[in-house]
Amino acid sequence: MIRFECDYTTGAHPKILEALVNTNGEACPGYGVDIHCERARAMLRELCQAPEAGVHFLVGGTQANTTVIAAALRPHQGALCAETGHINTHESGAIESTGHKVLTLPAENGKITARQIGQYCQDHYDNEAWEHMVQPGMVYLSLPTELGTVYTLAELEEISQTCRRWKLPLFVDGARLACGLAASDVTLPDLARLCDVFYLGGTKAGLLFGEAVVITNPALNHDFRYLIKQRGGMLAKGRLLGVQFETFLKDGLFLEIGRQEVAQAMRLRETFLAKGCPLLVDSATNQQFPILTNGAVSVLKHKYSFEVWEKVDQAHTAVRFCTSWSTTDADVDALIADIQSLSM
Amino acid sequence: MIRFECDYTTGAHPKILEALVNTNGEACPGYGVDIHCERARAMLRELCQAPEAGVHFLVGGTQANTTVIAAALRPHQGALCAETGHINTHESGAIESTGHKVLTLPAENGKITARQIGQYCQDHYDNEAWEHMVQPGMVYLSLPTELGTVYTLAELEEISQTCRRWKLPLFVDGARLACGLAASDVTLPDLARLCDVFYLGGTKAGLLFGEAVVITNPALNHDFRYLIKQRGGMLAKGRLLGVQFETFLKDGLFLEIGRQEVAQAMRLRETFLAKGCPLLVDSATNQQFPILTNGAVSVLKHKYSFEVWEKVDQAHTAVRFCTSWSTTDADVDALIADIQSLSM
Amino acid sequence: MIRFECDYTTGAHPKILEALVNTNGEACPGYGVDIHCERARAMLRELCQAPEAGVHFLVGGTQANTTVIAAALRPHQGALCAETGHINTHESGAIESTGHKVLTLPAENGKITARQIGQYCQDHYDNEAWEHMVQPGMVYLSLPTELGTVYTLAELEEISQTCRRWKLPLFVDGARLACGLAASDVTLPDLARLCDVFYLGGTKAGLLFGEAVVITNPALNHDFRYLIKQRGGMLAKGRLLGVQFETFLKDGLFLEIGRQEVAQAMRLRETFLAKGCPLLVDSATNQQFPILTNGAVSVLKHKYSFEVWEKVDQAHTAVRFCTSWSTTDADVDALIADIQSLSM
Amino acid sequence: MIRFECDYTTGAHPKILEALVNTNGEACPGYGVDIHCERARAMLRELCQAPEAGVHFLVGGTQANTTVIAAALRPHQGALCAETGHINTHESGAIESTGHKVLTLPAENGKITARQIGQYCQDHYDNEAWEHMVQPGMVYLSLPTELGTVYTLAELEEISQTCRRWKLPLFVDGARLACGLAASDVTLPDLARLCDVFYLGGTKAGLLFGEAVVITNPALNHDFRYLIKQRGGMLAKGRLLGVQFETFLKDGLFLEIGRQEVAQAMRLRETFLAKGCPLLVDSATNQQFPILTNGAVSVLKHKYSFEVWEKVDQAHTAVRFCTSWSTTDADVDALIADIQSLSM
Repeated sequence: MIRFECDYTTGAHPKILEALVNTNGEACPGYGVDIHCERARAMLRELCQAPEAGVHFLVGGTQANTTVIAAALRPHQGALCAETGHINTHESGAIESTGHKVLTLPAENGKITARQIGQYCQDHYDNEAWEHMVQPGMVYLSLPTELGTVYTLAELEEISQTCRRWKLPLFVDGARLACGLAASDVTLPDLARLCDVFYLGGTKAGLLFGEAVVITNPALNHDFRYLIKQRGGMLAKGRLLGVQFETFLKDGLFLEIGRQEVAQAMRLRETFLAKGCPLLVDSATNQQFPILTNGAVSVLKHKYSFEVWEKVDQAHTAVRFCTSWSTTDADVDALIADIQSLSM
Repeated sequence: MIRFECDYTTGAHPKILEALVNTNGEACPGYGVDIHCERARAMLRELCQAPEAGVHFLVGGTQANTTVIAAALRPHQGALCAETGHINTHESGAIESTGHKVLTLPAENGKITARQIGQYCQDHYDNEAWEHMVQPGMVYLSLPTELGTVYTLAELEEISQTCRRWKLPLFVDGARLACGLAASDVTLPDLARLCDVFYLGGTKAGLLFGEAVVITNPALNHDFRYLIKQRGGMLAKGRLLGVQFETFLKDGLFLEIGRQEVAQAMRLRETFLAKGCPLLVDSATNQQFPILTNGAVSVLKHKYSFEVWEKVDQAHTAVRFCTSWSTTDADVDALIADIQSLSM
Repeated sequence: MIRFECDYTTGAHPKILEALVNTNGEACPGYGVDIHCERARAMLRELCQAPEAGVHFLVGGTQANTTVIAAALRPHQGALCAETGHINTHESGAIESTGHKVLTLPAENGKITARQIGQYCQDHYDNEAWEHMVQPGMVYLSLPTELGTVYTLAELEEISQTCRRWKLPLFVDGARLACGLAASDVTLPDLARLCDVFYLGGTKAGLLFGEAVVITNPALNHDFRYLIKQRGGMLAKGRLLGVQFETFLKDGLFLEIGRQEVAQAMRLRETFLAKGCPLLVDSATNQQFPILTNGAVSVLKHKYSFEVWEKVDQAHTAVRFCTSWSTTDADVDALIADIQSLSM
Repeated sequence: MIRFECDYTTGAHPKILEALVNTNGEACPGYGVDIHCERARAMLRELCQAPEAGVHFLVGGTQANTTVIAAALRPHQGALCAETGHINTHESGAIESTGHKVLTLPAENGKITARQIGQYCQDHYDNEAWEHMVQPGMVYLSLPTELGTVYTLAELEEISQTCRRWKLPLFVDGARLACGLAASDVTLPDLARLCDVFYLGGTKAGLLFGEAVVITNPALNHDFRYLIKQRGGMLAKGRLLGVQFETFLKDGLFLEIGRQEVAQAMRLRETFLAKGCPLLVDSATNQQFPILTNGAVSVLKHKYSFEVWEKVDQAHTAVRFCTSWSTTDADVDALIADIQSLSM
């Protein structure tokens, strides 16, 4: 079975693992104030050209999302989000568990626009019953989105401007940001400049686990470590996060892994298109969503793991193939060959 | 200014006020365990043919909704609800403030169906990522709905069956139930039999305030008074609720008020239809939603208060006229005459 | 049975009731933006010499406490409070239900001191594990306290200074403030000047219900109405609160009721002391806590309702007698006579 | 610097690290349903003689505590706990963030008794205002406690009986259970039999991270994975937990590590006692709390890291020395020598 079902099937990239093994015996203080975390923080601030930013290492994405959102909102506020956004669909109500509504906007290919955000705010305050409705209190985006699409820098600039006009903190979920950076014209300094907070995900880019939250809005960063602790995200052996991110950030390893995941996905994309398979959404990153005949799904299932995404019609199903740091050229070659020989 | 903007513009029905005045000097224990509350409880249990039901008197609807929903759900569960449902739109995120997501279903004229509920549950458990999604944990309906429409007994029976099949407590918000009973074939015993919990609203039917929550599911009723207290709904002078509901329930006053509100609204409805005004939704109860020309809105505004509901197109606006216990025949006659003389 | 069990056994003071009856037929907009609420707001601002203060009318004390505390704290913060404070003991966990810990301080006669507050904060930030502990985020006092004692102006000044030094909003629960004003040297302008938020309670001083929340801290007042709605405290017929407070504030009725409740309680206090009954706590307000022999308790129970407070030893019990707006001189005379004739 | 400040300064025990390295390249499904997790579950069920128990692997202790408590309580309930309990003191209000109060009992050496629990419940239901108070809804213990003391099997039996009498789920926090098993007469099957839920901690016993939650109460186990996800505890690469626990449980490694941590701590304890240092509390496990002169603290600080626990008087300070899986005999020998040569 060759696995394309997700980007977290295997352990850590060899360099990450090696760093963990090499530092295993070191005695460090707990909870993320060790030398490795400090170094990784400094590196990330420099990469972001944000010397004052708060940098916090959390274990996972749902944890990062809830902690940031709980920190940013007052009780009567909600987070604006694409209806397909991860916090709306796949976190078992984590945001609501902190007392906040997810305010959804219709999404096109997983993306929302500055115009939609502005209109939502306008409509809210124009409504006579505004105080009886959840106030939009922040904006949540994913880059890339849950459907693999990316925001352009121009789109992000416009969204950021709209957020500032309406005084809404902008939060970018970067669980797959390594791929996002490889596939868009957005850079880390852009994110630091345009967002109030974002994170660079490690779990889906070759770390055992770990998300690096960068907070450029000082009000949001204030007392943030209390919230990490309260929400269960303060890892006792915090050095594990420091060691991994130190390695991930060094010499552009995170960019390299992102580029490689995307490159392999692009080979799959071209194969599907050449074969005449439509794509549910034209993803620029490491998730690809071809629409296959049900017969083709059955054939491929014998040799490959992948995710059934949705039924398109009686005869067709959209599926998801995902590349990861550990996807080999041979894995992709095999899949390409099998796609090419499908009778569609 | 003749007021049709809502059904809570005036104070209490004269009989209610009289009862409050007459009992004002009595000394009673606090928090709803006085003789008036006990009597009102007994009357409501008898009207519902539910001798074992728990009956609790709360001050307002949002309070009733949050308290019931907080009592019914475990943390990972949400409440299924029409997208137009009050808890989804006009309670400032009260449900989310208790940690729970409102799971919305597309509504037709404010109503949802047994089929939709069943399908939602089926889809939830069929999804591979089910444990990453909010579990449907109860169903919330309004009778009448926020758009004035009513469920038929057959529809309610079917919804109740579906809820029991999926083990979902069924909760009916009866903020305007007095009108609902007047305009549908559903009775209090039906509600007691088919729901796990519902309430009979007083605020919008001639009380100063007050909603009578009837809980027929013993698990839900267990310890419910702690929750009332915790959610701020335990009125110190609880006797005020008892006295009002005693009077409201006696000799069918609640039915009489409901029937009267509906009858006056029907006169308006017929006048709009006769005039050729389309209705945004064909409401059977005390809220009417005609679509007027913008010119007609301007004319009527000089003499009547009513709510602008939504813009329909450049030239037309849907508005809401609401009758209440204190709407007089003269009020309605005047409005009818003015509608008839509109140049549309 | 003559009732001294609490200060909310009867309905409304005749002037309050009369105002409700007289305005019953008026049609007003809902949710507290009517003319009566506006007038009452203006009167209270003037009485407080706080022309910019936000004034909000809520139904009950637990509701007021939770709404204010939810508005004031970030998620990692708690409310400092006497261990005997109402929010810690008798609100069924309402504060915790909003996500916040009640941080308790040992209380002497229900009161805490500026020194305790300062020390708590100092200790918090001195502790190496400070970020693993709940941050003190505000201070909650009651005036009078749950034991009927009052803070002096000097004490309140000192507490206020300490709160400002540590940037802690100061919140005074005034559920019985009418009595507190009668029994202390603190005035409404003092409260407005020294607190960030406080409330003047109506329920326990002759209203049917109602607490007037005064917010002088603009950051706390911002968007407060959303929170009232979310927490279930937005009364549909908000005019009921306006009408009652208008009357309560007019010509010093609230002061008169407070003074009368206190005066009657002082007659009881003197009688107990003259009889040689020790007091559990020497209360200056309308609650009195004599320690009686169990025999005396049994005798008095036949004719009077009062609350058993706590067992003091095998032979003695502390009880609570409470005067209210409706306690008559005859009630007090009767009780005094019976106390005097007790064989202790 | 030789580190005795806590038991999570170093990485993983060599066997654990080796297992992680050896399995790093395996492709596994995510979220804890992989073969390693399944094997570790089966091993733990067998060790507990609880074939039906639910076993869930979470990353950290605060996460485990909040998830279990959120799963166990209804909104009006709180968790009974020693005032020194971790959830009360060092989790930044995590429990309150889920809406629940921590109900504290005075603790002796970190321990509470069956009698205290029973009395608390009796007092709760005897109180006239019971519904206005937080209902005791479960009991939380730590084994060992935060002060290193242990419950005996007899004590645990008695507590369990009391819990069952009052229908309170019993939850044992086993963050340091490996040491607890080494230092008490309680076994894993005892815990499985007497508790509703407990966990075996890995973080403080040689794992990189990880706590194994064992739930024997089926009602509590139902839908527990939704809650893990919602509370941010569902590790994407769940196999990391499976691999570590598989190794930890195999051939009694967890017992061996626990025994070794305790043995080294006992050598320190004897040295302190021989030297005439009193102990703040006589701990049976890997944390030792000697009371040293301030001078001795200063001397030892140059060479050893340890935690200042509390000031005892002007001249003396209680400190904590903690042994861990990586504490060597040489570390302990050095410290012993230096203690012996202190001039006290």
